[in-house]
Amino acid sequence: MRLKHPTVEPKFESSEPKEGDVMPLVRIDISKTASRERVRDVGNAVYNAMIAVANVPEYDRFQVVTRHEPDEIIYPEEGYLGIDYTPDLIMIQVTWVGGRSTDVKKKFYQHIADEIYAKQGVRKQDIWISLVDSGREDWSFGNGEMQYAPK
Amino acid sequence: MRLKHPTVEPKFESSEPKEGDVMPLVRIDISKTASRERVRDVGNAVYNAMIAVANVPEYDRFQVVTRHEPDEIIYPEEGYLGIDYTPDLIMIQVTWVGGRSTDVKKKFYQHIADEIYAKQGVRKQDIWISLVDSGREDWSFGNGEMQYAPK
Amino acid sequence: MRLKHPTVEPKFESSEPKEGDVMPLVRIDISKTASRERVRDVGNAVYNAMIAVANVPEYDRFQVVTRHEPDEIIYPEEGYLGIDYTPDLIMIQVTWVGGRSTDVKKKFYQHIADEIYAKQGVRKQDIWISLVDSGREDWSFGNGEMQYAPK
Repeated sequence: MRLKHPTVEPKFESSEPKEGDVMPLVRIDISKTASRERVRDVGNAVYNAMIAVANVPEYDRFQVVTRHEPDEIIYPEEGYLGIDYTPDLIMIQVTWVGGRSTDVKKKFYQHIADEIYAKQGVRKQDIWISLVDSGREDWSFGNGEMQYAPK
Repeated sequence: MRLKHPTVEPKFESSEPKEGDVMPLVRIDISKTASRERVRDVGNAVYNAMIAVANVPEYDRFQVVTRHEPDEIIYPEEGYLGIDYTPDLIMIQVTWVGGRSTDVKKKFYQHIADEIYAKQGVRKQDIWISLVDSGREDWSFGNGEMQYAPK
Repeated sequence: MRLKHPTVEPKFESSEPKEGDVMPLVRIDISKTASRERVRDVGNAVYNAMIAVANVPEYDRFQVVTRHEPDEIIYPEEGYLGIDYTPDLIMIQVTWVGGRSTDVKKKFYQHIADEIYAKQGVRKQDIWISLVDSGREDWSFGNGEMQYAPK
């Protein structure tokens, strides 16, 4: 899906590496009953959180959504760590270049949950996030090229 | 899907961090021809193996299943390392906090394969497992919070 | 899907560990509009690139494909780093044992993009690759066994 950000001018004119690039790939696993608007808003929330707190450049947005049947998103009925879940549970997994601080990660989680709740009314308990690190050289954004050399 | 464990009492009353937490996210990729019972039993087997050998707390169960067409789960017809596969192949990928010993991982693989075979008669050759490490701070189990600080 | 390589003789007679084993799991996320031939050729291209440049043994081919609706593969309309994308975008994520050099990774990206373009005419801009490392002990290729001990 092509995403339009009509009010923002592109910042990049070249493929020059930049500080702060984290090159995220976001996987979103969500119920088939979620509306198209919800899917869109969840993707927006993750992207906006990256821009706001994780120093991700604008337009570095690559996300894969998979919709699931009820028996394909599995969580504990009893809850876990005092948190209870419903079939609206949204699983978000971000693979990115390591290096974000604990504080940034905390803000990242909060920003995502706050925005999804504000836009879609999803209970914050039902927003689940997992992060995986990789290296700068572990990404090709197209053209068969490694856009960033290792530091 | 809400999962009921009727015979077990919850152990947690708070979100206090605990030793041994590994915070797994399990991805299960399986044929569309698999029965609902098979899907359920595969998820149970991975969860039970974590409890039994990997020191995962009860109710720390978060799993994402994706069902696939025949041409979407690809394996070598010739087999690999002396193991042959069939279209029943089940791919299990676990992202968790690093630190399990080699011995624990060996027992984890064995436990999963044994239980899936015992419950569903799936050939053990067709049970394929991959593990990925992450950090303690790389997880939000809901509420936009980081439940565990880094050690 | 069983894959036949009729012109190649198997190299392995045992499960003896070998140098160079990287044990990849490949996830391919692609549009539902992609033909079966395209899906097949993308899988082949990733496999062939591994053999050609990443020292992966023949038949070490385990791939999971997921087909997606248009709103499930999300990319920046404005492009990124000077690269623009279309709905044909193919997301390839490889989890493997760490240790490939930067040079090998560069050749790996190029080989994949070249072959997909040659076989299917997919724009090289629309071929997107992400790598994730894991350890030698993080894999069970079947039978509930850890085929490779850690080095």
